[in-house]
Amino acid sequence: MSQAINLTIVGSIGIDTIETPTEKREEILGGSVSYACAAASFFTQSGMVGVVGTDFPQTFRDRWTKMNINLDGLQTQEGKTFRWSGVYEANMDNRTTLSTDLNVFEEFSPNLPETYRDAPYLFLGNIHPALQLHVLEQVHTPRFVLIDTMDLWINIAKEELTQVIGKCDMLTLNESEAQLFTGEHSLMQAAKALIKLGPDYVLIKKGGNGSMLYSRDDLFLLHAYPLDTFADPTGAGDSFAGGLMGALAASGKTDAEAIRQAMVYGSVVASFGVEEFSLDRLQRLDRDQIDQRLNQFRAICRI
Amino acid sequence: MSQAINLTIVGSIGIDTIETPTEKREEILGGSVSYACAAASFFTQSGMVGVVGTDFPQTFRDRWTKMNINLDGLQTQEGKTFRWSGVYEANMDNRTTLSTDLNVFEEFSPNLPETYRDAPYLFLGNIHPALQLHVLEQVHTPRFVLIDTMDLWINIAKEELTQVIGKCDMLTLNESEAQLFTGEHSLMQAAKALIKLGPDYVLIKKGGNGSMLYSRDDLFLLHAYPLDTFADPTGAGDSFAGGLMGALAASGKTDAEAIRQAMVYGSVVASFGVEEFSLDRLQRLDRDQIDQRLNQFRAICRI
Repeated sequence: MSQAINLTIVGSIGIDTIETPTEKREEILGGSVSYACAAASFFTQSGMVGVVGTDFPQTFRDRWTKMNINLDGLQTQEGKTFRWSGVYEANMDNRTTLSTDLNVFEEFSPNLPETYRDAPYLFLGNIHPALQLHVLEQVHTPRFVLIDTMDLWINIAKEELTQVIGKCDMLTLNESEAQLFTGEHSLMQAAKALIKLGPDYVLIKKGGNGSMLYSRDDLFLLHAYPLDTFADPTGAGDSFAGGLMGALAASGKTDAEAIRQAMVYGSVVASFGVEEFSLDRLQRLDRDQIDQRLNQFRAICRI
Repeated sequence: MSQAINLTIVGSIGIDTIETPTEKREEILGGSVSYACAAASFFTQSGMVGVVGTDFPQTFRDRWTKMNINLDGLQTQEGKTFRWSGVYEANMDNRTTLSTDLNVFEEFSPNLPETYRDAPYLFLGNIHPALQLHVLEQVHTPRFVLIDTMDLWINIAKEELTQVIGKCDMLTLNESEAQLFTGEHSLMQAAKALIKLGPDYVLIKKGGNGSMLYSRDDLFLLHAYPLDTFADPTGAGDSFAGGLMGALAASGKTDAEAIRQAMVYGSVVASFGVEEFSLDRLQRLDRDQIDQRLNQFRAICRI
């Protein structure tokens, strides 16, 4: 008998073609829910909600299954899987999207299996806010809901996004998205504006410069684990948030202290993820390696 | 009788005109040694080495004296004091220099009073590396020497700079300067390249994103204290380094653990400094306020 779903994660599934200054990889497994479920898998039983086309390779499905990710919420639709391709600049800080073919993702309507609806933790990955809302309507009083978004929805669906954020416990977005959403350059000011939308926590991601957790009565700054080099930053934010939600779900808690600890786990898992393309590194990762790096990380950040 | 000099600081003294998106301030007290000595003053007895012109206002001199900064190493030369003016962009991240008039600073030759030469701690602020070397030739076996620099010297005097860095215990520079110096985008790689020049420690400053201390067997990441708003970032790096050296000199130590603690003090003092223009905030600051913010800072960064 399979384990009960402790964490439901909704998001995109893509087949990516990625070019960095040193390497090009074609048709690799990507998408926010793929990275997030993989990162969560080290901590708890997650269930994946997403859509693929009939062209989706069985080998990709096997990668998830080997990580013990529940796929009952994975839909297969007639047509091609979502494709994305992008190229990173020399410094790896900026990337340019070369092509986006939504394919079956364009008509995606997330439907949660009954076993997913009672999961106490829910991560609404970056999809259209109307779809995020549709997921919220299907779940039964989750204890903690994290919502992610992106600049596209801030630009074209801000009203719906604002509405769904108000129903969540925690919002996460990138530094530039927080600034875009609020018009505030200062992250503290942006966080103060965003918390007024309703969530208890605002988590602003700063890439290689770490992240900031803001709530009405607590503030937490976290570094990114310092890497000498990395292969591909794609999915780092999704791995961070997925690892965070996995560790939080495993703790069974939802308070600020538990979120801090979960963020540290998420950051460590994300640091492994970027060492290789796709899920390549995460698939060879084990809990001992995570705990070992976590101890190093604590020593590096101790003041 | 005056206290023995525990920390000698060499650098520029300027009269600045600064424009931010909200305010313009003309002819205010600035310069690296001014910020650094002010920040160090909360922790130890420092002595200032710098040059001003005959136009330098007595009120500016009084500001330093009130902070108990020793001015025996301050030269007054016939002519005008160094002038700098700059304007900050809307986001305060970037600034443009509008004018630089070196004036008496052009012929500056730092000469240390005898009482400064025995100071156990020495901070070589950002001046031409040949002048930094000239200072090193005057001191008597200091216990710990920190050297700062800037992109200008990396571009036009890299050989001399490399030579003087090799004689110091610790090098500090900005993220972009570390990248420029080494050609490495990764800060870890840049730090590894810089430590080969000879210093035991490399401290890379990342502005609002904190700093990184690298040595052969230790790594330390420090955040910047998160401010809602600030008035003027000019001199923040000098205040950080000056506060660091002041706290380190007060500790009487030079090991990695002592440097970590000193960095935390430097960061806290710098966070106060940017709240107002020039030395305005630092002059009203006391040790209790520093310790109070330091405790908040620890709580914010605790993992």
